[in-house]
Amino acid sequence: MTRFGGNSRITGIKYELVVRTYYKSAHVMGTIKVPVNALDKMTDTEHLKITVMQRTIAPVTSSRLFQSTKSASKPTSTFKDVPLSNEAHERQPASLKASGAALATDKSGKAIDIISLSTGRPHPRYYPFESVDFAFTTVNSSSSGNEPSAKTFGKTRTARYDIAEQNAAIDLSVALSYGYSAGSEQLIKFLTEHIEAVHDPPYSDWDCALTVGSTSALDLAIRTLSEPGDGVLVEEYTYSGMIECLKPLNRKIVAVPMNQGGLCPDALDTLLMHWDTTLPKPRLLYTIPTGQNPTGITQNMERRRQIYKVAEKHNLLVLEDDPYGYLRFTEDKLPSYLSLDTSGRVLRFDSTSKTLSPGLRCAWMTGQTSLIQRFLHLHDVSIVSPSGVSQLMMYKLLGEVWGHEGFSSWLRYLRAQYRDRMLIMAKACETYLPEHLCSWDQPEAGMFFWLKIHWDEHAMARSSEKDISNIILAIEDQLYNAALEQGVLCCKGSFFNARDVQSDLYVRLTFVTASESEIVEAIQRFARAVKLVFDQS
Amino acid sequence: MTRFGGNSRITGIKYELVVRTYYKSAHVMGTIKVPVNALDKMTDTEHLKITVMQRTIAPVTSSRLFQSTKSASKPTSTFKDVPLSNEAHERQPASLKASGAALATDKSGKAIDIISLSTGRPHPRYYPFESVDFAFTTVNSSSSGNEPSAKTFGKTRTARYDIAEQNAAIDLSVALSYGYSAGSEQLIKFLTEHIEAVHDPPYSDWDCALTVGSTSALDLAIRTLSEPGDGVLVEEYTYSGMIECLKPLNRKIVAVPMNQGGLCPDALDTLLMHWDTTLPKPRLLYTIPTGQNPTGITQNMERRRQIYKVAEKHNLLVLEDDPYGYLRFTEDKLPSYLSLDTSGRVLRFDSTSKTLSPGLRCAWMTGQTSLIQRFLHLHDVSIVSPSGVSQLMMYKLLGEVWGHEGFSSWLRYLRAQYRDRMLIMAKACETYLPEHLCSWDQPEAGMFFWLKIHWDEHAMARSSEKDISNIILAIEDQLYNAALEQGVLCCKGSFFNARDVQSDLYVRLTFVTASESEIVEAIQRFARAVKLVFDQS
Repeated sequence: MTRFGGNSRITGIKYELVVRTYYKSAHVMGTIKVPVNALDKMTDTEHLKITVMQRTIAPVTSSRLFQSTKSASKPTSTFKDVPLSNEAHERQPASLKASGAALATDKSGKAIDIISLSTGRPHPRYYPFESVDFAFTTVNSSSSGNEPSAKTFGKTRTARYDIAEQNAAIDLSVALSYGYSAGSEQLIKFLTEHIEAVHDPPYSDWDCALTVGSTSALDLAIRTLSEPGDGVLVEEYTYSGMIECLKPLNRKIVAVPMNQGGLCPDALDTLLMHWDTTLPKPRLLYTIPTGQNPTGITQNMERRRQIYKVAEKHNLLVLEDDPYGYLRFTEDKLPSYLSLDTSGRVLRFDSTSKTLSPGLRCAWMTGQTSLIQRFLHLHDVSIVSPSGVSQLMMYKLLGEVWGHEGFSSWLRYLRAQYRDRMLIMAKACETYLPEHLCSWDQPEAGMFFWLKIHWDEHAMARSSEKDISNIILAIEDQLYNAALEQGVLCCKGSFFNARDVQSDLYVRLTFVTASESEIVEAIQRFARAVKLVFDQS
Repeated sequence: MTRFGGNSRITGIKYELVVRTYYKSAHVMGTIKVPVNALDKMTDTEHLKITVMQRTIAPVTSSRLFQSTKSASKPTSTFKDVPLSNEAHERQPASLKASGAALATDKSGKAIDIISLSTGRPHPRYYPFESVDFAFTTVNSSSSGNEPSAKTFGKTRTARYDIAEQNAAIDLSVALSYGYSAGSEQLIKFLTEHIEAVHDPPYSDWDCALTVGSTSALDLAIRTLSEPGDGVLVEEYTYSGMIECLKPLNRKIVAVPMNQGGLCPDALDTLLMHWDTTLPKPRLLYTIPTGQNPTGITQNMERRRQIYKVAEKHNLLVLEDDPYGYLRFTEDKLPSYLSLDTSGRVLRFDSTSKTLSPGLRCAWMTGQTSLIQRFLHLHDVSIVSPSGVSQLMMYKLLGEVWGHEGFSSWLRYLRAQYRDRMLIMAKACETYLPEHLCSWDQPEAGMFFWLKIHWDEHAMARSSEKDISNIILAIEDQLYNAALEQGVLCCKGSFFNARDVQSDLYVRLTFVTASESEIVEAIQRFARAVKLVFDQS
């Protein structure tokens, strides 16, 4: 019998994973040996037993505990030249957590009976929460991605001491305590299996960690992987939150040209080949490969391979932000950057905001173990971990009610729903928008239409004003306000412009919030606004 | 009828609060006028009605909507010289959220019917969560702070569309959506009332905002209020997480001497009076005034007034970190820094980790409105907001099951419980610890005993080694390991040392995690370890 974290009983060792813990004051490096793939052979009941962990104080956890033999036997990552910031270099594991890890075993590796007077972790009897019941929707959708063939409800109850009293996998005494920096072991196990099934990273030493949302994780990534003054490569139109994250942190936003297929690999290569050698060459590429925000573009397989190749050539670390990855309207396979990542240079960000709900504030990131550990050190002195209630809710749904198949069914259902809505908006656009003033491509994933407005048809385009950016921003403003007066709120394209100048006029419209009939009504209103702005011009 | 955020109907206007929203692209400053104290006159049912907000996209909220007339009529803050970092200076409100605020009214102030095609906020029908039931403990404790006279359970159910179907204050369609940067309006209302009752800040323009925990909020505060190279004043022994936050961010840790009453105001004054003028003078003072971590010291009223006076003299901004403020074992009044803060130079951090449960990851901070707004801008590109499920759980408990009186009862119950445990540890220490090797003061608040170990009784103190720090660290290490071998995990005092050198040897012990009988057993084990280490020396 081997013990990990003081609580889990795991039998059937095949591999050992060495989880390093640093004891700050003594500068001693301790190791805890835990079996990697022992879980494979377990029955469901055994699984529930062994995931009972963390009864006392915070130990470590890792995806590598839950990887399959196949994953664990792949070659290790080769990308070692991670562009760490000074801040990240200086960061050590939190002393209190590291001291907690000492609980596991004595010097001979034997589990010891320890009473902790160490961290100020209130006893669960002092949580005023007795139990939590969740009721979930469950869909059985056909593989063709149509409406679900059946929609049912699943229910779960979690009480304070379910682990002790019912041998459950999790309970409130665990979920409401201080958690692991990587997130709850129960969820990490589910997500590790999920990542293997969906992405199957080509190297063995990868890990995933839960975060309080991709927006936060990206902020932490910029702090960890770049210095003030460094350039970060982004698509020329990109998530406004990333622009607003980078600017105050004094990172130089380097816009990479896009075409109808998304970010242009040749342009990226050219840009880096002719980089001004007096400036630090960018090491980070931020890309949204599927249903890109705001353009709606999905990079095809060939495009992804080409971009990855340029990343290899110029030694880039790729931040793959893929919240819309599950929202593709077609069923054909499309590899993520993580799944193409033979060297270990991709840090992938997955969100639950678009698939489960934004209020969970629970996302996960996946990448090289050595890189993920940098984030865990930062978590200890910042976000600590996502809400235990959110993690509980997610685990109960994914791990106990749905399972992997149920999660897939849900995603197929969502895709079908969003495709229908997208088609409604597409038809409304074709029917109502003036053809000579607006053009667009129908998205094959995500949430957005990216309308190009032919600003050069506007009278102001023929004004004496020399600065095209000013003209475009003025017309954009007119259009935004006219739309609001007609009763539709749209998103200005300039919010997403990573360049300093405006050369085109775009409007971003989503089809996921309004009801189907409202979508049609809203496009009619928007069409009236376009006509008003251009007719009166 | 006035509308705020597109949804709340508030009658009975007395004051108007101007909430400024900046529209990034057009650089227009809009204002939304909302009544400040209209809520005072409402019945409970009306209150439930008006707190139904945020049906579409993210507007703004503020404590000032919920302040009493008394609070709102106080003078405004006078401290305007906030030490903002470059990062904070550059930060603007998130463009998408600002554009959402436009929903409220048309130019004439009239509410308009708007369909949003703006932000990618999934429709609540696409959340797979049907309902959440919480069961809570409720205590009716006597004011003497003894065991509760009655312990009952409260239950609540929250379903997806309770607002529409039952006129409820909150439901899953709101709680699981993207939230306000300041946190849910329902909780902000409760906390505003709570802050008025407990702290009654002496100025009017204060606000509170929810965060994902004080550890995160403090990290954001350091980023917002200081630059790399700046000094931050801290107690000479302080929260290890703060030390580990400051070091990698390249902030200079300036340790302020303490005595048995806590941080010394004279020493603080002297230190700043004789500050080396070639270095930037510190502007931030971080203090844990009650049941200080790790020393357990509570600053008395006079000490607080003196320290605040020095802060005024040297124009400091005070970061008041008070997670143990509710855990005082006596009932006499003790003002917080926030309640002494006539000028508006205090930023107070409250935690739920020690009173409700750490897994909520939900805390709040209170300070000048203009300062809190800086954090909201940072939230938009980092944590976004705390978990909606945690906020829901907290609101249901505090706002609907307990109310203010029930919360007070719970805190009295906790205090009584912790006092009992503290007394058990005190008695065990007196009984078992060798008097000539250990000394301590009995804490009057919080979670910790801070044991001074008389290291000079150890043989190593008479060794030829010149560096006292090394000697102390070596004895500390011996003691820590001996304790672990005896079966008790304690916390090394050196983790909390803000100075570069060790001149004393301390051990921190908590009485909140172990059971009562374990506490006694653990102290016996620790006493054996002390004797072994010193006898063998």
